[in-house]
Amino acid sequence: MNNEGLPNADTIAIAGLGLIGGSLARRLVANGRRVVAWNHRPHPYEQARAAGIECVGSIEDLALAKPDVLVLCTPLKAMPQALARLAPVLDPHATLTDVGSVKGQVRDEVRAAGLEDRYVGAHPMAGSEFSGYGASSPELYDDALWAVTVDDDTDYDRFLLVADMICTGVGNRIIVLDDDTHDCAAAMISHMPHVVATALANELTDMPERNIAQALAAGCWRDMTRVALTDPDRTRAMVEEDATNVAELLRHMSGRLADMADLLESESSDARGEAAESARDSIRAFFAVAQPYREFKAWQRSGDIDYDEVSLSIDGGEWQSDLLESAKRGEHIIRLAGRESFVAQVRTAL
Amino acid sequence: MNNEGLPNADTIAIAGLGLIGGSLARRLVANGRRVVAWNHRPHPYEQARAAGIECVGSIEDLALAKPDVLVLCTPLKAMPQALARLAPVLDPHATLTDVGSVKGQVRDEVRAAGLEDRYVGAHPMAGSEFSGYGASSPELYDDALWAVTVDDDTDYDRFLLVADMICTGVGNRIIVLDDDTHDCAAAMISHMPHVVATALANELTDMPERNIAQALAAGCWRDMTRVALTDPDRTRAMVEEDATNVAELLRHMSGRLADMADLLESESSDARGEAAESARDSIRAFFAVAQPYREFKAWQRSGDIDYDEVSLSIDGGEWQSDLLESAKRGEHIIRLAGRESFVAQVRTAL
Repeated sequence: MNNEGLPNADTIAIAGLGLIGGSLARRLVANGRRVVAWNHRPHPYEQARAAGIECVGSIEDLALAKPDVLVLCTPLKAMPQALARLAPVLDPHATLTDVGSVKGQVRDEVRAAGLEDRYVGAHPMAGSEFSGYGASSPELYDDALWAVTVDDDTDYDRFLLVADMICTGVGNRIIVLDDDTHDCAAAMISHMPHVVATALANELTDMPERNIAQALAAGCWRDMTRVALTDPDRTRAMVEEDATNVAELLRHMSGRLADMADLLESESSDARGEAAESARDSIRAFFAVAQPYREFKAWQRSGDIDYDEVSLSIDGGEWQSDLLESAKRGEHIIRLAGRESFVAQVRTAL
Repeated sequence: MNNEGLPNADTIAIAGLGLIGGSLARRLVANGRRVVAWNHRPHPYEQARAAGIECVGSIEDLALAKPDVLVLCTPLKAMPQALARLAPVLDPHATLTDVGSVKGQVRDEVRAAGLEDRYVGAHPMAGSEFSGYGASSPELYDDALWAVTVDDDTDYDRFLLVADMICTGVGNRIIVLDDDTHDCAAAMISHMPHVVATALANELTDMPERNIAQALAAGCWRDMTRVALTDPDRTRAMVEEDATNVAELLRHMSGRLADMADLLESESSDARGEAAESARDSIRAFFAVAQPYREFKAWQRSGDIDYDEVSLSIDGGEWQSDLLESAKRGEHIIRLAGRESFVAQVRTAL
């Protein structure tokens, strides 16, 4: 605890020194935290030690280092095994967190390992097309946002500890969500669009005139199918891990596209009639829906923005929903101002 | 006619000195052709004249310059008026072409003006996010592909003349298509995906948690919605001009997305049953469809490619379908080798 009664994450254990874990470890060391790390293969240890990271021989040794926070940075599919090995040895003092991109599933796995009482979920918006410690860099986290995921039983002090690690230790922003809000938002901006990109690539591949279509393809097509070119097995796993949210959004999208097909057909089949007139109005309305989004993106691109700052106070009982409402308003927490107050920037209000 | 009996496009008239027309004029001049140009406003004339382009006061004056080819580079919506003004004054010797991005509609307009006997359609795959003569550059056409659109009545000599202008005058490649094949391919790789991108942006805008989703958005989302940020009125006009093809493809896409939603739901509702097993197989199959496309893109990105060259011979009666079949095989004509033979590169065989 520091002067303001805020918990401090002084010693941080990191399981997994890939791109995300390695960059996090290096950034925390650079900001004066003690970092103890383990990797399933020891090849990055020499470089990591030179960067000031203490490396240990087994994941169990991480628990023995008495960390304030232990961050699981292993791939999603390795989490159950990592949790099973940690459960018998992890001191109740240690707060467990992770950087996985799907939060409901990780919490289920944490619960299965009996570690839910000390868990706070986290997902940093950081990454690159590379992987492995060799590609890591403290700059990967420059100006990054983390989603911190909590549920009704999350311990407030453990939340503050993770928030301190992120805001002070890494120097990043946070939004506080429940698992489903996180996973649904991730389905919206990544998992579902990956399916859409794949469906576009499938549609072209299935055309008899695919070589002609490909010959005419330019920037629009390239951008809209880029993610369809990534490893389809990894995309499939990601989509299946968030299946319910992805399925619901795919239904919405399917409906939007079918509606537009109907409108275009009634407009062109009856060019001067009343039905065409009404279709034309609805088509115009379709292209107007996202106007607030276009205006937000134009604002975001307009250069150096001075974000409005707001103070957030927690009334005690309902901190989870208070912070979720703040996230819905587009506020990102940048600083802990006391045990029950935060400073946030208004970043994504659209 | 040159030595091989091939028609030559020596004098080329260009109507419209914007980005596309201006760049085309400069490139043709650089390659030794005589170019006479008109623009609806004379502001680019001083620069154009300095680049060796003869500028005239009215679109009618273009006809008086006795061009071998007249290229309409006006916006699509200005074409009917341009054609109406040209029809009374254009010498039957002149071959009319254009650079419009929708070919069926332009041919209808050409027919309405009574100029169909001298028309060959064209659409260069060239452009940038800028517009106007000030942004023009001969390099805009570097290694560009043109779709040349013909119908059963297209005069073969006029086709050769336009092909000469593109292959020799501009130094570009061509594929020869009928209007509908062109417009359907354009719907596939641009018009329909513009609707999909807009629907994605609409879906996010309509979410109560839009600020959270936007906060988590990264490269996938940015790329898949980039074209939704462009002027929605221009996108709407483009989609409406190709409505039938876009509607059909939107129905296909709507079906693909709904099918995937069904599969994800049966997989997760019955995780160990036979239905889930079969859903899992179908999901795997969905992600495998575009494998030839992924392999083609990997080949295309693999660096300096020596494209296979093939010789094409026209047997006389069926040149339109012979050349369409060549385009379907992914062959791009790079050179006229005689009145009835061409050299092509195999560029997009997937």
